[in-house]
Amino acid sequence: MANPKQTRFVVVGAGLVGSMVAAFLGRHGYQVIVVERRADPRTAGMAGGRSINLAISARGLNALAKLKLDDDILALGVPLYGRMIHNVTGPLGYQRYGVGSQAINSFSRGELNLGLIRAAGDAPNVTMLFGRRCLEVDIDAGTVTHLDHATGGDRQVSTGIIIGADGAYSAVRAAFQRREHQDYSQTFLEHGYKELHIPARPDGSSALERNAMHIWPRGRFMMMAMANLDNSFTVTLYLAMRGANSFEPLTTPAAVGTFFEQQFPDAVPLMPTLLDDFFANPTGSMVTVRTFPWQIGGKAVLIGDASHAIVPFYGQGANAGFEDCLELLAQLQASPDDLNLAFERYQAIRKPNAEAIADLAIANFHEMKDHVASRSFLIKKKFENLLHRLFPRAFIPLYSMISFSLLPYAEARDKAVRQNRAVRLVLGVALGVAVVAVAGLTLSRKA
Amino acid sequence: MANPKQTRFVVVGAGLVGSMVAAFLGRHGYQVIVVERRADPRTAGMAGGRSINLAISARGLNALAKLKLDDDILALGVPLYGRMIHNVTGPLGYQRYGVGSQAINSFSRGELNLGLIRAAGDAPNVTMLFGRRCLEVDIDAGTVTHLDHATGGDRQVSTGIIIGADGAYSAVRAAFQRREHQDYSQTFLEHGYKELHIPARPDGSSALERNAMHIWPRGRFMMMAMANLDNSFTVTLYLAMRGANSFEPLTTPAAVGTFFEQQFPDAVPLMPTLLDDFFANPTGSMVTVRTFPWQIGGKAVLIGDASHAIVPFYGQGANAGFEDCLELLAQLQASPDDLNLAFERYQAIRKPNAEAIADLAIANFHEMKDHVASRSFLIKKKFENLLHRLFPRAFIPLYSMISFSLLPYAEARDKAVRQNRAVRLVLGVALGVAVVAVAGLTLSRKA
Repeated sequence: MANPKQTRFVVVGAGLVGSMVAAFLGRHGYQVIVVERRADPRTAGMAGGRSINLAISARGLNALAKLKLDDDILALGVPLYGRMIHNVTGPLGYQRYGVGSQAINSFSRGELNLGLIRAAGDAPNVTMLFGRRCLEVDIDAGTVTHLDHATGGDRQVSTGIIIGADGAYSAVRAAFQRREHQDYSQTFLEHGYKELHIPARPDGSSALERNAMHIWPRGRFMMMAMANLDNSFTVTLYLAMRGANSFEPLTTPAAVGTFFEQQFPDAVPLMPTLLDDFFANPTGSMVTVRTFPWQIGGKAVLIGDASHAIVPFYGQGANAGFEDCLELLAQLQASPDDLNLAFERYQAIRKPNAEAIADLAIANFHEMKDHVASRSFLIKKKFENLLHRLFPRAFIPLYSMISFSLLPYAEARDKAVRQNRAVRLVLGVALGVAVVAVAGLTLSRKA
Repeated sequence: MANPKQTRFVVVGAGLVGSMVAAFLGRHGYQVIVVERRADPRTAGMAGGRSINLAISARGLNALAKLKLDDDILALGVPLYGRMIHNVTGPLGYQRYGVGSQAINSFSRGELNLGLIRAAGDAPNVTMLFGRRCLEVDIDAGTVTHLDHATGGDRQVSTGIIIGADGAYSAVRAAFQRREHQDYSQTFLEHGYKELHIPARPDGSSALERNAMHIWPRGRFMMMAMANLDNSFTVTLYLAMRGANSFEPLTTPAAVGTFFEQQFPDAVPLMPTLLDDFFANPTGSMVTVRTFPWQIGGKAVLIGDASHAIVPFYGQGANAGFEDCLELLAQLQASPDDLNLAFERYQAIRKPNAEAIADLAIANFHEMKDHVASRSFLIKKKFENLLHRLFPRAFIPLYSMISFSLLPYAEARDKAVRQNRAVRLVLGVALGVAVVAVAGLTLSRKA
């Protein structure tokens, strides 16, 4: 397999990660077929999925840069330099994410996907098949059977090394699960989400600070808003499915109106279509999917959400999937004649990092809805920022390591644990010194 | 629903747990239909499943006693008072499980199941349907559609409150999983198992000590043997599926023979059918299944392995399922008019205990194959037994709390953590006192 052109890949899914991996493989001389259920957005217009915008930070930008798409794509993003906290009453609070120009970037998922589909379609050796529904995956035979999604007819079979880039409810992963010894878990948050909308002002300006992530933390639930390129905001309400303060009682316009007036009084005047949006948009659920192995015998491999769907609260879902693409490509280049070895190394490197960001994303949900507004959280953040300025290499806040560095997720998490231990030790020693000093003073006075 | 006879249950599965719950419900006046795929063992003879014998300890005996089956059933079990450790060379080592007559009991799964099926069939209000394969479960309609398993014909529909007692690969749970927000995980051990056989001696006596659990711990793998009523032993080899010392290279009689001669030299002469058994019997896999919720709206509920399949290394699978039966019945009696409430309380009480025993069973695998033969493990066990004799109420070894008490699993695990902390503290204080004493002696000598 010294000549990669002899290896053909069948990528299932032309979402963010499927398009990116197809573009990379095609440019490196591999034959690639991409099978996607949706229509071609280059001709049909982009169908917005449930998740309308998403965050791209250092890891994602790094991968986009390697595809040489960064400048085009970056122009589509709105940089967010910090969190704007909306309490029920009182002034807004602002917390910077990082230092200097460090920012996460709010992107339209549809626009970003379109850019990556263009990159894949323009790459040599890549054939894109749109409007094709994956019917059956046979890993041993290396075949993906697909149909015309609209008619259910025109059955075709594509043959090659299978890459499952078909998301949280992956059909390729389902074929893995029909074999023995496939670990699998799906865990739902008790919270669902509902997308809402803040339009731009009549003069075209934005109704809220454009370059910030807006958060309305309310303890058991929260609302968020991220700017779009047209100065509108995509708003997302995260609320328990059942119980007090949940979606359960919000069944009438009056109930929804009262709930928003009580909980988000500053946002209500900015949301003229609130009630329409609330009852028209579906209530989404959020799932963490874990599975292992990610590859079978060098014949099929999972990537992106298909191998590790995570909740959105660290803004890392797409970033993690893009990192998968880079690692898969690096291992293919390191072992071009042994796909089994390349895929084994890919999963060995990526699986611990996927586990780490999955856990961190769940933890960040609790931080955002609950702690972010508390005084002790603010003091801790300020103390962390102070330590980072004093010891810029030795102490880096976890959020910065995740969002503004390429340090593998698992290493970032472990480093944060060590940093916290060291800080507690230093504080303990300082406290001890203080106690001894005070005791010494007291004794010397008595003497 | 003050008159329970108006409530009808459809129990899917007449294994150990399904039969027991049907017997309890029928005796308490509920209408019960049991749907089971296998033929009626009362007439057809018991088909041995893959797992030929199992352990019943205090929790299981308690449930059997409440069915008033204990004396009949106990006569079918062989009490095991401790572990007999077989090293590669050297004498046998023996570790008692508990004190006095405390024992776990080796049962034939088939015989125990037959006893419970008789109890269910003899209970009033219970209809047992054998040879019926569950085809479809409709939770909202409260229907279970089933077919004649042999012919695939004769479709019938049974209606009622559905109890999924259909094991680790539950069809009722699959219906739960097709709904949103059902957490689910399956995790396989990297080890598989193979059942083998040690027959009774020609004179009918047993070839090994009958009243002990025999263990051949070998670090990465192990073998176990438990006595049957006829003085034969069911032997189980637990071995990694791949890598060094795994099932992978054991593909020829010569390879199997060499492996056993090197690893289990004392067992080989007792296993005349070793090679035939090894190649005739399947290699089983071991899975831990976790899911939540266990009930849907008072219409369907999961019990036993269907809700919490665990690995066999604490000998608690059947015991945990029997405890589920008692709790479900207790909650039905406490809230006879509100099945939703009864099932909510049942799952709230049982889920944490199922999690605890699932984790403990995996941890015990590592203890049995690895630590059980080590000197430090033996010292720790002896120290624990000493503490238990000195403080019989304050310190109870974890194994005893799990096997010889009815303390809920999660409480037993938490108490063990607290005990270990206390022991470490006492040892630390003792060490400190010793250091001060030695230092004092040294100083006084110098002075």
